[in-house]
Amino acid sequence: MIEKFFNPKSIAVIGASRTPGKVGYAILENLKKSFSGKIYPINPFATEILGLKAYSSLKDIPEKVDLAIIAVKAEIVKEALKDCGEKGVKNVIIISSGFKEAGNVKEEEEIKKIAKKYGIRIIGPNCIGVFDAYTGIDTLFSEQKRVKKPRKGYVGFISQSGALGLMLIDTYAELGVGLSKFVSLGNKADVDEIELLKFFGKDPSIRVVSMYLESVSNGKAFMKIAKEVVKKKPVVCLKAGRTEKGKKAVLSHTGSIAGSYEVYKAVFKQCGIIEANDIEELIDFTKVLACQPTLKGNRIAIVTNGGGCGIIASDQAEAENMKLAEFEKSTLKKIKQILPPYAVASNPVDLTGDANSERYKAVLEAVFKDRNVDGVCIICLTQLAPLDENIINVLEECKFYAKPFVVCIGGSKYSVEIAKHLEMQGIPVYPTPHRAIKALRVLYEYGNVLKRIKKE
Amino acid sequence: MIEKFFNPKSIAVIGASRTPGKVGYAILENLKKSFSGKIYPINPFATEILGLKAYSSLKDIPEKVDLAIIAVKAEIVKEALKDCGEKGVKNVIIISSGFKEAGNVKEEEEIKKIAKKYGIRIIGPNCIGVFDAYTGIDTLFSEQKRVKKPRKGYVGFISQSGALGLMLIDTYAELGVGLSKFVSLGNKADVDEIELLKFFGKDPSIRVVSMYLESVSNGKAFMKIAKEVVKKKPVVCLKAGRTEKGKKAVLSHTGSIAGSYEVYKAVFKQCGIIEANDIEELIDFTKVLACQPTLKGNRIAIVTNGGGCGIIASDQAEAENMKLAEFEKSTLKKIKQILPPYAVASNPVDLTGDANSERYKAVLEAVFKDRNVDGVCIICLTQLAPLDENIINVLEECKFYAKPFVVCIGGSKYSVEIAKHLEMQGIPVYPTPHRAIKALRVLYEYGNVLKRIKKE
Repeated sequence: MIEKFFNPKSIAVIGASRTPGKVGYAILENLKKSFSGKIYPINPFATEILGLKAYSSLKDIPEKVDLAIIAVKAEIVKEALKDCGEKGVKNVIIISSGFKEAGNVKEEEEIKKIAKKYGIRIIGPNCIGVFDAYTGIDTLFSEQKRVKKPRKGYVGFISQSGALGLMLIDTYAELGVGLSKFVSLGNKADVDEIELLKFFGKDPSIRVVSMYLESVSNGKAFMKIAKEVVKKKPVVCLKAGRTEKGKKAVLSHTGSIAGSYEVYKAVFKQCGIIEANDIEELIDFTKVLACQPTLKGNRIAIVTNGGGCGIIASDQAEAENMKLAEFEKSTLKKIKQILPPYAVASNPVDLTGDANSERYKAVLEAVFKDRNVDGVCIICLTQLAPLDENIINVLEECKFYAKPFVVCIGGSKYSVEIAKHLEMQGIPVYPTPHRAIKALRVLYEYGNVLKRIKKE
Repeated sequence: MIEKFFNPKSIAVIGASRTPGKVGYAILENLKKSFSGKIYPINPFATEILGLKAYSSLKDIPEKVDLAIIAVKAEIVKEALKDCGEKGVKNVIIISSGFKEAGNVKEEEEIKKIAKKYGIRIIGPNCIGVFDAYTGIDTLFSEQKRVKKPRKGYVGFISQSGALGLMLIDTYAELGVGLSKFVSLGNKADVDEIELLKFFGKDPSIRVVSMYLESVSNGKAFMKIAKEVVKKKPVVCLKAGRTEKGKKAVLSHTGSIAGSYEVYKAVFKQCGIIEANDIEELIDFTKVLACQPTLKGNRIAIVTNGGGCGIIASDQAEAENMKLAEFEKSTLKKIKQILPPYAVASNPVDLTGDANSERYKAVLEAVFKDRNVDGVCIICLTQLAPLDENIINVLEECKFYAKPFVVCIGGSKYSVEIAKHLEMQGIPVYPTPHRAIKALRVLYEYGNVLKRIKKE
């Protein structure tokens, strides 16, 4: 039944508005653009909104309604929910705020009761709802110019904060990273992170689950589901509310109890959940896990056209408990033949500043085929003119080696566009060697989790 | 005499080329665009390049030459340098590579001898030279479309890696961060980081010194100068070659001995140098130190329109040993009056998702004026439509409170453009709360360094 939140045939928007800038207008506008099923605006004062026939009440709709989005004042949410019950709507997203998070615990309990009575499943209240890149469900009341929507991809993202979710979605789109489904949990009156995690675990369009959590509804249930899901796909989690002040802020944000961070850390480790320490890591980790195989061992190769970045990457590799691979003799011999005489054949491989895409291609072939190499970090300083644009093809072809790799490209427009193009092709790109190496480590970490699970 | 590298009246380019794509062409093209003094291309086979009269030899130039840039093959660098000596050129940048870094130690020694004989100061060899945003000196052989040049600013940047320098310059430009001077050290045959640090320390256009170092020429001399400079302006340093593999890579990159990282760490601490752990921190830290006053204490306020980001910032503040300020009673009262009834007046201040710029302005005034607040982290989720564009003015006006602050804005084009606009106005902006809080910590750290120095 959770499925219907993401794949309804028809949607009613209760609180649809004719006024641009209003939540009930933005939701309708976004839905109209992306959703191909039926859309019913509910507004007692309108006959038509955005070219769609409007209804004064849910019961006036002649057809079946699969999903209702409630975006009215808190005081009339109860009534709207009852209408949904009478109409037989089983899936409801409540956008409206003013419940538990504002101290109105009783109001929220009453909503739960109504939902229970009619067998309604609820996402929210106090949330921004759902986005599905495949089915076009989009209840995020965001302006087009402010929030870009990501392409279809493999990340399932669950966020206990709506605004943070929007910021991340916008960033995903900017980077060229794809998304499958997003859910803003809000107050979790009914559907919570546990049920969604379970659902995402079974969803074939989702290859990695990303979570921003402030609290967990039920620790035991969470662990049970998480352990199951992690067997099939990686789960990355950013836990906020770690410190005293952070916990206090959680309470006034979503009315939840943050709990002991040490306990969370232990739980994540036990379940094989990969922890992200900040928003940047949450994005960096999920995008690499969504498109790259795991590292079988921790022996990596670094290939670069800038010596400095190669050194920084080497330092970081050791800091992350990764090893620089000892190349096979035959590999070293091949690299020596390819490199100009003034370059040194070792790992990191410094192709030197005059490297073109051909040199990259030849060295990468040797490196990827080396049996001592478990993964590759490819650094391309696109600022250097000898590096021609065919590097894009060279990097794309690296996929055929079926070994994990990440790319480091940073700088202004020229570089950013190459990076984005690669991301669209499912190649994870990072603006610094530091972040690229961390991403490789995460692939290794998830590989280890899978190994551990097999043994258990 | 170092001064002449940045402010010559006339420049000769030895190895000037008529062929686009060649180093000797790119240097001339960049110089022609930015430098208003005289430019003399030296090329025995040309009479004119890029509209400039070319000379077959340095000695044919009738006027005095302040600075020569040598970009010829390694084998003829010696001859070119002798020509410079005969002509009386005292400042020479040797771009050419193929010296110590390629094992040709003897060749480099001979160059040093020639320089000594004629009293020539050298930057390089094996470098990309110098960029000065004020005088227009630009020897970086980079294509316009690949490398953007930063606006005039207050950062002096010394890099032992040329390519990494280019990547950072390009990133500075992309972010809207300003630069004063950049020097690529190369093999440091003569001018080294110590002399440049001293020079940058006295340069009034430089407010913060940024360094990427793989080695230090003379530890004692470095410490002596660093201690002097740090009294006047902050110095941020990224030291590469920390680990065994990293050190090995340093040797083949710039032919230098990286030394023990533990020793470096201790030296930095003793001198009051702020350490950056990666490229991102090097940029993040220098840009905030270039435009914000130090924090007198560690009590910060966080103001946000997204609860989740406020929680993450709170967690990070504690992780960085910063404290969330306890607001004065009068401040709390004011904030309560400004906020809507469903919002909670505390620190972090969650203005809630429907905050407009007016609400930010009113709350920020109360927060900045609070005597318990040493610095402010302002988080603006520009994805949320109620936040109007007047927020730009509100943030700019925060400068008048003369208290340090940083801004967190992240996302796609709409957000990036606001961030860049603010950076151009000297307001440091970070894409995540994590990085914004770290920047505040660095302002506090430098404040502590200054306090410690005063006591000594």
